[in-house]
Amino acid sequence: MANSGVGVIVNQINRVAIVGGTHGNEFTGAYLIQKFAQFPDLVARPSFETITLLANPNAFAVGRRYVEKDLNRCFLKQDLQDPTLSSYEELQAKSIQDTLASNRDKQADFILDLHSSTANMGLTIILVNSHPLNLKLAAYLSQINPLVRVYRCSFKSIEENPFVNSLCELGFAIEVGPIAQGLLKAELFQKTEELISTVLDYIEGFNQGKIPSFKETLILYDHLSVVGYPKGQNGKIFGMIHPELQDKDYQALNPGDPIFLAFDGKTIIYEGTSTVWPIFINEAAYYEKGIAMCFTQRQQINI
Amino acid sequence: MANSGVGVIVNQINRVAIVGGTHGNEFTGAYLIQKFAQFPDLVARPSFETITLLANPNAFAVGRRYVEKDLNRCFLKQDLQDPTLSSYEELQAKSIQDTLASNRDKQADFILDLHSSTANMGLTIILVNSHPLNLKLAAYLSQINPLVRVYRCSFKSIEENPFVNSLCELGFAIEVGPIAQGLLKAELFQKTEELISTVLDYIEGFNQGKIPSFKETLILYDHLSVVGYPKGQNGKIFGMIHPELQDKDYQALNPGDPIFLAFDGKTIIYEGTSTVWPIFINEAAYYEKGIAMCFTQRQQINI
Repeated sequence: MANSGVGVIVNQINRVAIVGGTHGNEFTGAYLIQKFAQFPDLVARPSFETITLLANPNAFAVGRRYVEKDLNRCFLKQDLQDPTLSSYEELQAKSIQDTLASNRDKQADFILDLHSSTANMGLTIILVNSHPLNLKLAAYLSQINPLVRVYRCSFKSIEENPFVNSLCELGFAIEVGPIAQGLLKAELFQKTEELISTVLDYIEGFNQGKIPSFKETLILYDHLSVVGYPKGQNGKIFGMIHPELQDKDYQALNPGDPIFLAFDGKTIIYEGTSTVWPIFINEAAYYEKGIAMCFTQRQQINI
Repeated sequence: MANSGVGVIVNQINRVAIVGGTHGNEFTGAYLIQKFAQFPDLVARPSFETITLLANPNAFAVGRRYVEKDLNRCFLKQDLQDPTLSSYEELQAKSIQDTLASNRDKQADFILDLHSSTANMGLTIILVNSHPLNLKLAAYLSQINPLVRVYRCSFKSIEENPFVNSLCELGFAIEVGPIAQGLLKAELFQKTEELISTVLDYIEGFNQGKIPSFKETLILYDHLSVVGYPKGQNGKIFGMIHPELQDKDYQALNPGDPIFLAFDGKTIIYEGTSTVWPIFINEAAYYEKGIAMCFTQRQQINI
């Protein structure tokens, strides 16, 4: 896939932003931000400044994904520049851009955006470009922790990326799961915190010219397509994720494998012609869009 | 505990109401109601009429627990009679009362209210009184299916019960879990449907004078108290369910056992003096109230 971020050479990362609560009902990130605000030493490193940001405080206060509009779809460049857009999240996106990306003296060089999913995503790194440093860091993280997976949903240009991570070439979102919306699970909270700490340590090493050594290969799951639930003529879904597919994120789905179970008890199979690797299986936030999962293509790349 | 429903003698159940979507983000019940509406034969039995009701359609449409007020707290007798109460859910409660309880010719004799929980509740039956028929049915269900648990949160009088199940002495809520809000899990959907079918079969047998035989004992978990999250002076919670307690609903918690993990990493232990059996551990809907779990007392009763 084409990419805008093909690798501006970076020598030093001066400012790292850790963003959480971009979706107000994804508590793991939101509460980690609150923890880091209370104990800033946890995210401080000698060679760069770390700032933390609770991205959607109003949505977090009411425990909902968003108040008016999904904040993580508000960062299209044209939307950020459109003065007529004034919903709460659209204004919040402009404010976050102002904080993290508008001023060279205080702009973030690296953004980590913390999300959680009801799907069995483990500790997923979501790359939105293929900057060599992002790839190297992703490879390092996935090699030291088998729970880490790397999903790439590249955009043709940075202008087409509506995510928080469009504000900066370096960095990525972390999508942890499975966890229900609106609650904390201590085990996943701790694993996410450890992953963040490892990222910060890596950046510290990078700044000091001491990147940890690792294999130069990376298993990438490249975005292929979005898969909808089966729907009737009335527009209502008539089936759910098949029990055999539930929680099988990142596992091969072959032609003929069960994919949905219709409410009438009939199994619906995957009728594609090639193997795919589904992720975001049964993500609650996607029901409103009728999305059941995403298909990816697994590949190993050299970096 | 004292009870209003100490057992009016019932000879025949003429009308059973299955209610779902009382909380709009508890999809298992809401989608089962839609399925039953489409395939009414599934819930039809020869000796009684079965009606199905999607209780909070507006909340279901937006995937939220409620729009203005928790519907399952709107059924206090005094509130149902108060003409000044006019939020969406308060009006909806009055409408449901009108449908299920106002007219002797069409009133429900038995109400099954379908809920789901992010806690590991299995298939929990929530008794709100100790009517002998409810107890016998609960004992039967728990003896044929080890996933079934019986929780009793009795009220001093029916006037103090704010639940849908206050409308009728017979019946109970079913609380299934663990499942995130806003999604379906096929396996739990099927288990819930099977449990409903067994209840309907039992009622059919009762009407025909043929109640299945079973042991005359029942393990009951009686409500003791509500347990809040640890909170700081700023009113914010500073800990989460301890990993060793997560998903341990209905298991004994002894003095000295870990109960919370503070964000700073310290373990908080249960400082009570006697064993309790926690349930609703880490229910997402209770975060807004700061509730971490409920303690119950396990006991075996003869019926």
